[in-house]
Amino acid sequence: MTRTVYVNGEYLSETDAKISIFDRGFLFADGVYEVVSVLGGKLLDFAGHMKRLRRSLAELELPSPAEDDELLAIHRRLVSENGLDEGLIYMQVTRGAADRDFLFPPKGTRPSLVLFTQAVALRDKPSAETGLRIASVPDLRWGRRDIKTVQLLYPSMAKMDAKRRGADDAWLVEDGVVTEGSSNNAHIVTADGVLVTRDLSHSILHGITRAAVLRLAAEENIPVEERNFTLDEAKSAAEAFITSASSFVLPVVEIDLHPIGDGKPGPIAKRLRQIYIAESEKTAI
Amino acid sequence: MTRTVYVNGEYLSETDAKISIFDRGFLFADGVYEVVSVLGGKLLDFAGHMKRLRRSLAELELPSPAEDDELLAIHRRLVSENGLDEGLIYMQVTRGAADRDFLFPPKGTRPSLVLFTQAVALRDKPSAETGLRIASVPDLRWGRRDIKTVQLLYPSMAKMDAKRRGADDAWLVEDGVVTEGSSNNAHIVTADGVLVTRDLSHSILHGITRAAVLRLAAEENIPVEERNFTLDEAKSAAEAFITSASSFVLPVVEIDLHPIGDGKPGPIAKRLRQIYIAESEKTAI
Repeated sequence: MTRTVYVNGEYLSETDAKISIFDRGFLFADGVYEVVSVLGGKLLDFAGHMKRLRRSLAELELPSPAEDDELLAIHRRLVSENGLDEGLIYMQVTRGAADRDFLFPPKGTRPSLVLFTQAVALRDKPSAETGLRIASVPDLRWGRRDIKTVQLLYPSMAKMDAKRRGADDAWLVEDGVVTEGSSNNAHIVTADGVLVTRDLSHSILHGITRAAVLRLAAEENIPVEERNFTLDEAKSAAEAFITSASSFVLPVVEIDLHPIGDGKPGPIAKRLRQIYIAESEKTAI
Repeated sequence: MTRTVYVNGEYLSETDAKISIFDRGFLFADGVYEVVSVLGGKLLDFAGHMKRLRRSLAELELPSPAEDDELLAIHRRLVSENGLDEGLIYMQVTRGAADRDFLFPPKGTRPSLVLFTQAVALRDKPSAETGLRIASVPDLRWGRRDIKTVQLLYPSMAKMDAKRRGADDAWLVEDGVVTEGSSNNAHIVTADGVLVTRDLSHSILHGITRAAVLRLAAEENIPVEERNFTLDEAKSAAEAFITSASSFVLPVVEIDLHPIGDGKPGPIAKRLRQIYIAESEKTAI
């Protein structure tokens, strides 16, 4: 079965889904994206993703391809056309097609809008039970990681590097401190039961799931500290975990071959995963 | 008149030239490029560009889309089909189309190959006479600028920023020292007549034109120092200029509103432009 995808106003078979070679997403990585999760055919935290999309567009002076309600309608139609019960909806906006020039194209150039679905098991993931093994990799990305651009070559290389070293994913390290995972936010729990997570800045993505989990942690009376933590502090933490729209909360059981805590998924990570899923299902639209 | 362009084995009208939305060039900026200049219908330093392409592909473990002689044949056919006398040929290679995953696609995934021409005046440029005004911009790019990837969003933003500040282009500055221009290498000439240019590393692109110009400078008995130089040193230099495949050598007459030398194109920059063009025409194929 081929998927139905959305490209600039049209619903097409994925095999016909193409964009111009002059699209600035292709030539300059001049585009941003969001990934919305789907559980039971419903969208998780759609409003949060739209808010971040608007911020990314504004930071890059990218024109808006459509209003939120139109984007919602496209998301819902793709869920319906593809019979998507559980998985992801990927959405990308670029500055559109124009003859190649480092200068932005003239005002009025139509931004490109592309969406497609991916059917993936999100709730019942083996790694939620076994935990993830992490390999650390130097963070060589650009200076505005708060903008969710498609400049994803380095995260892709970092994940490949981790995989080759026998790990499941990479944590990126800059000046000795952990910035984030290859495509997720990184968190630890100290021996005193404090959830420690990197504070927001231009250095990391402002994760939608990160924000939700911190809110839920506070409701559970788990103390939260938003600050830098070193790779060494992470290795000797009681627990570690990641958050992202597609992984929710996943425990980390090993960093650079050092077991975290007792080498099994920690209770706080497991609890946060559980309540994040329950809360998400309640509020999905 | 519409151009004929090349996309994955086919010669197409530019309006039909499309790639899959699943191309990793579009989704991950997972691709590299080269720009070859054309003078009198002939290619400038094709071998140099092929050598750098091979290096970029190797650094990213990108499969080769074709042998050098096939790529040469495509370049020549595009020159011929488009009647290109003077201008550029842009070539991009990506890791090909595959369902979205940070991990590289399976071995055997066919890389994408895209080429198109741009008719541009290269020899008689007004800026060769007037010189360029430069604005400095912090260098926020990733850590592997020696690989010629399509992660060009920041250089594009930097050039826009420079334009808005009334300048023609940007020089990127990191830790007080100049790395390079938005899409060219940066050079200065000291009061003693020494050509100073940033040394090669992961911090800058290994310019094909930079290398040719340094060789020609040596032949002209101009002393060359490959080392860091600060923005302040550049502002108080006797001359400044840029090099790139598409601009050859262009004098810089102003940096952040400070005139360079007497505020006019310097004799060494003018001389190097002249002999670079003469040499290029002699060796073009």
